[in-house]
Amino acid sequence: MPFATRETETLFREQPKIGNQYLEDALLQSYLKTHLPPKVQEEVSQDLEKFGNRLLTEIKPLARECELSPPVFRQYDAWGQRLDHIITCPAWRRMKEIAAEEGLIAEAYKRRYSNWSRVHQAIKLYLFSNSSGGFSCPLAMTDGAAKVIESLGIPGSLKNAFHHLTSHDPKKFWTSGQWMTERRGGSDVANGTETVARKQPDGAYHLYGFKWFTSAADSDVTLTLARIADAQGHVKQGSGGLSLFFLKVRDEEGKLNNIKVQRLKDKLGTRQMATAELWLDGAKAELISAEGRGVASISSMLNITRIHNVIAAVASMRRMINLSREYALRRVAFGKLLKDHPLHMQTIARMEVQTRGAFLLLMEIVGLLGLVETNMANEQDQLLLRLLIPVAKLYTGKQASAVVVEAMECFGGQGYMEDTGLPVIVRDTLVLSIWEGTTNILSLDVLRSLTKSQGQVMAVFSSTVQVSPHQ
Amino acid sequence: MPFATRETETLFREQPKIGNQYLEDALLQSYLKTHLPPKVQEEVSQDLEKFGNRLLTEIKPLARECELSPPVFRQYDAWGQRLDHIITCPAWRRMKEIAAEEGLIAEAYKRRYSNWSRVHQAIKLYLFSNSSGGFSCPLAMTDGAAKVIESLGIPGSLKNAFHHLTSHDPKKFWTSGQWMTERRGGSDVANGTETVARKQPDGAYHLYGFKWFTSAADSDVTLTLARIADAQGHVKQGSGGLSLFFLKVRDEEGKLNNIKVQRLKDKLGTRQMATAELWLDGAKAELISAEGRGVASISSMLNITRIHNVIAAVASMRRMINLSREYALRRVAFGKLLKDHPLHMQTIARMEVQTRGAFLLLMEIVGLLGLVETNMANEQDQLLLRLLIPVAKLYTGKQASAVVVEAMECFGGQGYMEDTGLPVIVRDTLVLSIWEGTTNILSLDVLRSLTKSQGQVMAVFSSTVQVSPHQ
Amino acid sequence: MPFATRETETLFREQPKIGNQYLEDALLQSYLKTHLPPKVQEEVSQDLEKFGNRLLTEIKPLARECELSPPVFRQYDAWGQRLDHIITCPAWRRMKEIAAEEGLIAEAYKRRYSNWSRVHQAIKLYLFSNSSGGFSCPLAMTDGAAKVIESLGIPGSLKNAFHHLTSHDPKKFWTSGQWMTERRGGSDVANGTETVARKQPDGAYHLYGFKWFTSAADSDVTLTLARIADAQGHVKQGSGGLSLFFLKVRDEEGKLNNIKVQRLKDKLGTRQMATAELWLDGAKAELISAEGRGVASISSMLNITRIHNVIAAVASMRRMINLSREYALRRVAFGKLLKDHPLHMQTIARMEVQTRGAFLLLMEIVGLLGLVETNMANEQDQLLLRLLIPVAKLYTGKQASAVVVEAMECFGGQGYMEDTGLPVIVRDTLVLSIWEGTTNILSLDVLRSLTKSQGQVMAVFSSTVQVSPHQ
Amino acid sequence: MPFATRETETLFREQPKIGNQYLEDALLQSYLKTHLPPKVQEEVSQDLEKFGNRLLTEIKPLARECELSPPVFRQYDAWGQRLDHIITCPAWRRMKEIAAEEGLIAEAYKRRYSNWSRVHQAIKLYLFSNSSGGFSCPLAMTDGAAKVIESLGIPGSLKNAFHHLTSHDPKKFWTSGQWMTERRGGSDVANGTETVARKQPDGAYHLYGFKWFTSAADSDVTLTLARIADAQGHVKQGSGGLSLFFLKVRDEEGKLNNIKVQRLKDKLGTRQMATAELWLDGAKAELISAEGRGVASISSMLNITRIHNVIAAVASMRRMINLSREYALRRVAFGKLLKDHPLHMQTIARMEVQTRGAFLLLMEIVGLLGLVETNMANEQDQLLLRLLIPVAKLYTGKQASAVVVEAMECFGGQGYMEDTGLPVIVRDTLVLSIWEGTTNILSLDVLRSLTKSQGQVMAVFSSTVQVSPHQ
Repeated sequence: MPFATRETETLFREQPKIGNQYLEDALLQSYLKTHLPPKVQEEVSQDLEKFGNRLLTEIKPLARECELSPPVFRQYDAWGQRLDHIITCPAWRRMKEIAAEEGLIAEAYKRRYSNWSRVHQAIKLYLFSNSSGGFSCPLAMTDGAAKVIESLGIPGSLKNAFHHLTSHDPKKFWTSGQWMTERRGGSDVANGTETVARKQPDGAYHLYGFKWFTSAADSDVTLTLARIADAQGHVKQGSGGLSLFFLKVRDEEGKLNNIKVQRLKDKLGTRQMATAELWLDGAKAELISAEGRGVASISSMLNITRIHNVIAAVASMRRMINLSREYALRRVAFGKLLKDHPLHMQTIARMEVQTRGAFLLLMEIVGLLGLVETNMANEQDQLLLRLLIPVAKLYTGKQASAVVVEAMECFGGQGYMEDTGLPVIVRDTLVLSIWEGTTNILSLDVLRSLTKSQGQVMAVFSSTVQVSPHQ
Repeated sequence: MPFATRETETLFREQPKIGNQYLEDALLQSYLKTHLPPKVQEEVSQDLEKFGNRLLTEIKPLARECELSPPVFRQYDAWGQRLDHIITCPAWRRMKEIAAEEGLIAEAYKRRYSNWSRVHQAIKLYLFSNSSGGFSCPLAMTDGAAKVIESLGIPGSLKNAFHHLTSHDPKKFWTSGQWMTERRGGSDVANGTETVARKQPDGAYHLYGFKWFTSAADSDVTLTLARIADAQGHVKQGSGGLSLFFLKVRDEEGKLNNIKVQRLKDKLGTRQMATAELWLDGAKAELISAEGRGVASISSMLNITRIHNVIAAVASMRRMINLSREYALRRVAFGKLLKDHPLHMQTIARMEVQTRGAFLLLMEIVGLLGLVETNMANEQDQLLLRLLIPVAKLYTGKQASAVVVEAMECFGGQGYMEDTGLPVIVRDTLVLSIWEGTTNILSLDVLRSLTKSQGQVMAVFSSTVQVSPHQ
Repeated sequence: MPFATRETETLFREQPKIGNQYLEDALLQSYLKTHLPPKVQEEVSQDLEKFGNRLLTEIKPLARECELSPPVFRQYDAWGQRLDHIITCPAWRRMKEIAAEEGLIAEAYKRRYSNWSRVHQAIKLYLFSNSSGGFSCPLAMTDGAAKVIESLGIPGSLKNAFHHLTSHDPKKFWTSGQWMTERRGGSDVANGTETVARKQPDGAYHLYGFKWFTSAADSDVTLTLARIADAQGHVKQGSGGLSLFFLKVRDEEGKLNNIKVQRLKDKLGTRQMATAELWLDGAKAELISAEGRGVASISSMLNITRIHNVIAAVASMRRMINLSREYALRRVAFGKLLKDHPLHMQTIARMEVQTRGAFLLLMEIVGLLGLVETNMANEQDQLLLRLLIPVAKLYTGKQASAVVVEAMECFGGQGYMEDTGLPVIVRDTLVLSIWEGTTNILSLDVLRSLTKSQGQVMAVFSSTVQVSPHQ
Repeated sequence: MPFATRETETLFREQPKIGNQYLEDALLQSYLKTHLPPKVQEEVSQDLEKFGNRLLTEIKPLARECELSPPVFRQYDAWGQRLDHIITCPAWRRMKEIAAEEGLIAEAYKRRYSNWSRVHQAIKLYLFSNSSGGFSCPLAMTDGAAKVIESLGIPGSLKNAFHHLTSHDPKKFWTSGQWMTERRGGSDVANGTETVARKQPDGAYHLYGFKWFTSAADSDVTLTLARIADAQGHVKQGSGGLSLFFLKVRDEEGKLNNIKVQRLKDKLGTRQMATAELWLDGAKAELISAEGRGVASISSMLNITRIHNVIAAVASMRRMINLSREYALRRVAFGKLLKDHPLHMQTIARMEVQTRGAFLLLMEIVGLLGLVETNMANEQDQLLLRLLIPVAKLYTGKQASAVVVEAMECFGGQGYMEDTGLPVIVRDTLVLSIWEGTTNILSLDVLRSLTKSQGQVMAVFSSTVQVSPHQ
């Protein structure tokens, strides 16, 4: 019995592999050709092809290292000194440099392709998403922070920060956090925020409070909400009591800005990224919204991070389906390749259609955003964008969970094995319907925006949908 | 600012807690009252209440230990000797004793309540499922193996094994594996099985082959399929070449029966349980089906393990919904408890309805199984059972994935945190639509059984459904 | 080339194995025969043989589990509540039960063999030491605490605690900690203790301070030092300001007694055991020494824990040498067994001689302790005991480090491999010259005691050594 | 009680810190000044100062990452394909580049400072040793391999390999393994080597065997011993049957050269480095010694690796003492700094003296080696070098274990805490008396060399020692 030699036989056909994602995505290429001005399209395509190669050769291995080396937390040194050091792996730090080099934030603010720069950025993020080792998350918040600062007219005191956040230079690039959720909070920022800001003689504020979920807690700067205390120490409750603050996480010497890390969260997924509980114990911050206008000022951040959430959802679906399709070309069952089993192909086809739809919805949204940001949008565009962002977030978040779970099943038992790399996609996708507002929260948001516009938004939607070229 | 004292404040209201699951499950109690004969109902209820208490105080902490101490594999000792030792934690070993003491297999074969013993057993397994630390899995296969042996009339050579598998005595109780999947295999047992059986002069067989997924690989005995080689070493391909074998994993001295463990699988979930790749390198086995009748003989095992899959699916949904309901009573958002938010309650209500339906479908199936096993079933019952098992498996497997993911979202960000205990339920549930036949595989099974009966099965189904008291 | 079959060949001869340690220790048996009264010797021998078997079959596997499952610390629950839960493994908890059943503390206080009970206990601890999975450490401190309480005449308020500490009943048995070391402290208790005790109206004290090393932090009760604050909150510095307190770690409901766990120590060895940094934040305690007599009162504890340290040192040497000897019988190099290489045997012989000497010194000390405890000691005995305890601690601690490192080398590269079980002995031994007073600290202690007795101690030593039967 | 604020107080004085090791080592500087020609001394000093800074800022943090991210082994991919992939961390890979850039091997073979190049290299390795994250080990073997190839006159077929091994170019630099130890082997290479070499028609050899300890198993090439089989497959036993082979671990495509990795060793220390068990299953190799002259040819490798062992021993002692001295300047006990306690300072002083002696012995040896390598050594020098290498290895290996354990004790309990970084030095030092020949093995070597020279070696030693300027 030639038992021993068997070990070297091929047990399965070759592992499903994905090449240059840009080159393999016909829908994406066709979208670019039919929507972008030829010269822009040409340059963008070249950049995407190059980026696709870099993803394959340089970035994906880094992502794998991020998965294998999640951040660890060191609260004290050997001598009992409080450190609160979140130790990230070299690959994670390299991702930050790459994000700068590739202009993953910068492109959206330099706008070298005018309104199409948002599309350009969004597609890069979409290609990056599943190979980012979780670095998509800090980029989403960084984009959101840059947007808020831009919306505020880039006040002088934030000019430097804006340059860092939108820098192409790996040495200068900063990422931003978004410290919103408190222990009572979650989506209910208006009632759940207990952090207090105390004005100092020099005009700065000191923040005191406890932030319950802070994603990518290793960021350089952050935006956060707090209630300004008056001379008697009283604060105003409700949404109207909230103001928006900007703060640096560490001072020039690298010392934490009166911030204490309570612990890192132990999460189902996005384990490559440090999510922390933070105590603000007098953190020095700058008030950047009008007093009591914190929620309004933060809303442009939420719009951006929700679009990033849609990008992640579409990217996850696309990755899982591409892998399923590849596998269907290689795996034999019941005497033929999976691709020749009609029911299996029906399952994949349904997911494919959903994913294509979601991709085009995403392009629609970032197209509109590009117009708005370059003052080329009419009122209809603006209303539509306002409606579509929460709808797309809630819809694709839910959809992505269902699709990745279904696609995992397309691999049979192999889908459940960690070393295929499939479970990490499933785990990381399952957060998408939760953060940045759960499905129900966003449903109510949509309803509110419909009501507020007295139906106008709905009317715009109906008319636009009818003329949509993608139907 | 009384910052430091805050640490001791209640950050959230009390953690959602589940008490005696039997006492908290009104539908289950009502089912027992309306279906079981009074005396049986009384005894069974007492047993379930007692078991419910034991789950709470003794078994759940063991389950937590099983999650924290997954099995580890030691292939060599320090001196280079091959060991192939799968090291399980003490809590896992204790679960085996408890399973015996509680008669989790035994009850179904002692039949002290005649046809209702299956219902009794199924409900215990249902209560046990989410507190079993993954021990449900070996029980499913053990039940399946006992069923196969019983179906074969408990031949003399298997009498001893049957007594062990159905023992109430922790010292005697054995668990069984089910080594079906090979590298080319998965559900396609007929084409994918390459293991060869060589007859020995003493009538025993030696098995040679590679089993790709073997769940609960620490079992005492197993059933497996192989192709008997003729004198020239040739084997018959296809389903007709497969015969069923019984083997002990270790000999009297504890030495592996010419079995080598290649590695443990690194899985998304069910991490409490050792799933292994095994080489059979001359493992001594007993032929227990007629030659070439392996697939037919194993089918009664599959029926049982699929019912166990339904039990696990319903139990997971029930657990996640109960936790969501509890949480809705405690968590405040937007100024009121979650339970007072209509949209949130609609979400929970929809899941609740699905879960109740699934529970009653499960009861229907085990009720029918009880009748069949005690020769009280008519032809209709038998046809219906044949139809319902794959339908219920495929339907509840899919449903459970969707429900647990939805229920996780009901906790907002907390649902995604490992220390809530919610993610482990999600991960363990996601396997239910994959193993024991994926959804598509089972869909085709159902179609085949409809075709084979020339529509008779469908007719029975239609007529039964109309008179169902649960509608 | 029959490459594949090689895998099953014996790479080394059989792994060195140790049987019943009592039966294999001729020196120990001879000591018992020549020193103990025949009836006592007979009973003790029977107990030791039985215990030797239990060590082999039950206790050693538990020790291995303790090594594989070191304690973990959970500071917060999922909902942000402070837990400060040190989670120990089931095997560790089982060790506590066994320690009670075997009377590892109780025997020394029941004194059923009069002065020989200490010898009986010490030998059991000596056999237990290397199979205890680190549980020797809490036993040392428990013995010390019982001794302190006994020395104080077992005051009424401590009667219950004394019964628990010296109980044979696994359900009642308590272990004690010894919280001495503070951040500035180490051996310099007199200057380094900053913990303050504030008297309460009911006569109890509340303790406030930070304990830097607390071994076996999962103990039930503890002794600790603090400075009593007067009405103005002032405390007296130096040794004279220290008083001894007794406290329960948790209240009746299992809640921590105003104690916070800052973190577990990450140590080179003794990893089976939780060493913690603890904040006392108003821990309720009972004053058990006279005010300002804390250091004097704790000294009887130190005597006991230092003897336990000697036990551990001798046991480690004995274990490593026995393993080396075994290996020398099995391993071939340069054409003959290691045992037939003179230089190798010289190395082992030197270690053997040292270990025998250390063992007899230990017996001398516990023999003297037994006499003192049963009021059978003369003044000479008492002086000698006072001298020998620190000398033996410092000498054997240093010696044990050297011997285990040398013995590790006797295995060549294998000595450095974790799965031989040798490195864990090395790591655990290296602490013995550090805790309970480093070598230099104890050297100075010895000098002080010589000076204090104006040479009398030295005179006793010289005269005793000359008549010693072991020379 | 201001309990909460205490947390931020200094618990200990500042952590002991080491600066630029070159600048802090007066003995080293004085040695250079008194021994090297002025111009050489100037250049070497500049290089060492620069290297000292690089160690501090760049290399030490990498070393810490190597400790935190030990290599992991992946034997199979998800699809069952054998991978045998040893995954090292990025910091480890960076160390390799730095080793090339700094010429840690190259300097010894370029010889830009003639005979002083060996001293130059040795000092760099000495400074590098404790900050190398274990990379010293592959460098030792690489140096040894380069030496062997140089000794063989750099045959044409090895020219390329020699250039890679001695390259300054990070892209070209190769490291070498040294696969000597087999299951029966250890130091007894002559009897313990079972690997067989089979000549192929093309003149190459295929090797078949099992290597039990292969340090730094991620190397590019290796030297190894095997017995050449004759046409009948017979091999010659004993030392005379052994020949030396050179092989590349992977082919041009990165595929393993018919080598299988059985497992990584789980070691007490040197955990940063992958030590593996390897099966050679037809590995293609080149015969580089004369047939049967393997042991003689490998001896120049052993000389080099033993000198590296001395370097590591001296470096460990130096590091631990420097840390102890630093600590003595900062830590207060019993009312004064440790440095003001005479007994403590005596302990440190004794270690200091030992370490200085060992350092000068090392310089003596590498000075002699430099002379020999540049044909400037007389016969006396050669005899002396031959004697001193094993003596220094055995003596400093033993000494280093004792010193680091003693120095650890100088920190009290802190010495035993992993986060001080002290235990990793202890663990890594404990291997130095074991590998490259244990103390006893080397003692016998020395005796043999004395005997062989008929006392001449001893005479040279006696006369040299008398005129030694270091006495």
